[in-house]
Amino acid sequence: VKVNLADALATLDETFSPRIVGTMNDYKLMVVKVHGEFVWHTHPETDDFFLVLSGELTIQMRDGDVVLGPGELFVVPRGVEHCPKGNAEVLLIEPVGTVNTGDAGPSALTAPERSL
Amino acid sequence: VKVNLADALATLDETFSPRIVGTMNDYKLMVVKVHGEFVWHTHPETDDFFLVLSGELTIQMRDGDVVLGPGELFVVPRGVEHCPKGNAEVLLIEPVGTVNTGDAGPSALTAPERSL
Repeated sequence: VKVNLADALATLDETFSPRIVGTMNDYKLMVVKVHGEFVWHTHPETDDFFLVLSGELTIQMRDGDVVLGPGELFVVPRGVEHCPKGNAEVLLIEPVGTVNTGDAGPSALTAPERSL
Repeated sequence: VKVNLADALATLDETFSPRIVGTMNDYKLMVVKVHGEFVWHTHPETDDFFLVLSGELTIQMRDGDVVLGPGELFVVPRGVEHCPKGNAEVLLIEPVGTVNTGDAGPSALTAPERSL
């Protein structure tokens, strides 16, 4: 089944709560609404794919920020500490099993893996 | 480095000639211009990710067509025969080493793996 990303996002109210809209091999395709600042973390075992669909997303890293607008993508290399912030709708791709807060440990921002 | 997909596509003239704009783990992120009909093929070893950025892409399959507009994605399951057609700009994601024409065998449409 095809996924219309805008339609999927329109049904999602929560921020920083990624929802799986599909899979590709052992990867999960997720939509997420970003509002405000997330938490500094790394994924020691995987790169982290971000594609901005609307709004503006800043991926803060210790070496500097990457600012993304609609139609712009960035892959945070595995093990690189980052902290997303902004007001944006985003397509995320990560291996199934990847925890959104990475190595930062469980917190209120840690989200379960769930479908829309 | 971030990738602006529209800017990347603006530098690409050839159709059905995917260009790698980034990688995520062992996957290649590609932009491609579709114009007309591709070739029927399958990828026995991987799912195949399509996200339409502009235009309209029809993914023909033996069980029926999936028609995608901007902001719509579809994953062709591994081993499912398909033939894209349309007039569109597309983000493709496949494992590094995947041949664009899959099991259809080498033809004029078979493209080398190359960066933009």
